Amino acid sequence: MTTAKLDVVGIGNAIVDVISQADDAFLAAHAMDKGAMMLIDEERAEAIYGAMGPGIEASGGSAGNTIAGIASLGGKAGYIGKIRDDLLGKVYRHDITAAGVAFPTPAATSGPATARCLILVTPDAQRTMNTFLGACVGLGPDDVDAEFVASAQVTYLEGYLYDPPLAQAAFRRAAEIAHAAGRKVALSLSDSFCVHRHCQAFLDLVEGHVDILFANEAELTALFETGNFDDAVARVRRMVELAAVTRGAKGSVVVTRDELVEVPAAPVARVVDTTGAGDLYAAGFLYGLTRQLPLAECGRIGSLAAAEIISHYGARPETPLAAYIQA
Amino acid sequence: MTTAKLDVVGIGNAIVDVISQADDAFLAAHAMDKGAMMLIDEERAEAIYGAMGPGIEASGGSAGNTIAGIASLGGKAGYIGKIRDDLLGKVYRHDITAAGVAFPTPAATSGPATARCLILVTPDAQRTMNTFLGACVGLGPDDVDAEFVASAQVTYLEGYLYDPPLAQAAFRRAAEIAHAAGRKVALSLSDSFCVHRHCQAFLDLVEGHVDILFANEAELTALFETGNFDDAVARVRRMVELAAVTRGAKGSVVVTRDELVEVPAAPVARVVDTTGAGDLYAAGFLYGLTRQLPLAECGRIGSLAAAEIISHYGARPETPLAAYIQA
Repeated sequence: MTTAKLDVVGIGNAIVDVISQADDAFLAAHAMDKGAMMLIDEERAEAIYGAMGPGIEASGGSAGNTIAGIASLGGKAGYIGKIRDDLLGKVYRHDITAAGVAFPTPAATSGPATARCLILVTPDAQRTMNTFLGACVGLGPDDVDAEFVASAQVTYLEGYLYDPPLAQAAFRRAAEIAHAAGRKVALSLSDSFCVHRHCQAFLDLVEGHVDILFANEAELTALFETGNFDDAVARVRRMVELAAVTRGAKGSVVVTRDELVEVPAAPVARVVDTTGAGDLYAAGFLYGLTRQLPLAECGRIGSLAAAEIISHYGARPETPLAAYIQA
Repeated sequence: MTTAKLDVVGIGNAIVDVISQADDAFLAAHAMDKGAMMLIDEERAEAIYGAMGPGIEASGGSAGNTIAGIASLGGKAGYIGKIRDDLLGKVYRHDITAAGVAFPTPAATSGPATARCLILVTPDAQRTMNTFLGACVGLGPDDVDAEFVASAQVTYLEGYLYDPPLAQAAFRRAAEIAHAAGRKVALSLSDSFCVHRHCQAFLDLVEGHVDILFANEAELTALFETGNFDDAVARVRRMVELAAVTRGAKGSVVVTRDELVEVPAAPVARVVDTTGAGDLYAAGFLYGLTRQLPLAECGRIGSLAAAEIISHYGARPETPLAAYIQA
């Protein structure tokens, strides 16, 4: 096994977020489940956009946010994801490249437009997401560059990647390449509804291919179809080498077969928008892990990175995280 | 004179902002004057965008920000500005319409793309702006709908409108329509460099057409080519009916021929990005003025609206201002 050139390569849906404020009545009127991610077609995207308030646009995508976070911490990171050669695709490539991330995936020159996620943030700082997958449906195993994946200590996959049809094959190919090179494979479960949609496939994948699992409480209990958190934690410890489970304001629990570490949440003066909290927790955690830091320290950096992201709108850091975690 | 249907109609450059963080070395390396607005061509826009950090996109434009602010306060507002029928133009129309503003100007179907302003925010919260005017150069007198302008108590013009070639004629036409209908004309000087570029034209315009003038200290002293603030204030009182001069953390000074009111700045926990401070001061001030509130109260609402905008990135309110000024 050669020395890894990169800390983490992320594979995910390359999505530009359109973020707006909304109240609970708006969510109800448009049949949205608060806190969830719903897949929508272009027609519904137009209808929701027409009805929602003024927005800000910023690059997003769960794994993209994590990877940008790792780069902001000073880590060496790469990204694989599918954009179209349109204006939003150009914005996506600019932002992730300007963050210091290697992004070799070519843009599609035909087919659907670059993906958009219409994010409604309610006054309680929860985000409800409506994703038009667009060009992401074109991501397939051919986009998984073997040398690029093998060059990273960890290959990080987002659960949302199970939604576009070809991406599952890309997923498996990436895991096989990583393991053949003696690297680790990490997965984020992304969303409890996403877990419900793909429950058995996720269980097979976690059991067969995943070394490091990221989830929140709702996603983990959904995966094991149990209402009991401790039971879910006990089961995940037998299934993966390492799992980090976030619990919002209660902090996180990090487990291996032999260890259980409880990590407190980092304080935040005012929680504005929880979009990206899990993504940035994973960023901080993986930054620490790829530097062989103790698990408690990995969790602490994850909590700090999450605290920065929920203090403002958008899921990419506003403050260089390397300085933020020192302060 | 009939009762006005609208409080304020704004006329300005319709611009989408691309906001990023930068340090002083970046400004120096790209020959930018900190705090200023520089006009750039598409080639330079591409070069700066390629070099700058990850961005967020949000609708902007000086008068557009003011008008969106008035609507957020609960005022009845309209906007005239030129976009192209492209993605950014669609974003611009969505945002200002979703803010509750009437925006009848048709998009251009040919010619340059919707305007962009690349805004670099330094750690001292100052913004430095690089504007590619794009479709704004197409705004002309034909875009000034007489009935629309005559229906507003105040027609508000941004000084930046003096940069695109046809807009000066639009400016004069709007002022003539407003005055013929017995309405008031307001002008914001926008930028001391913009004042330098058009100094005599601005003096003629202010003297001949403007009832209400908004400026900051640097712009006002530039207009009268004096280094003495008190002298500039004395001269502006003889020239316009009402002037509101902002002085950053020192608050603002509101003058008529007979009155001088000093207004303190509203406290801000952390100044993040000063983009839009003057625009939102004007929004709050005009909201109060069109409700016939005392000048001190107009200034107080202006200061509060400015305080909200400088507490986050971007120049459109994140908090509904009607609630914010009550709190």
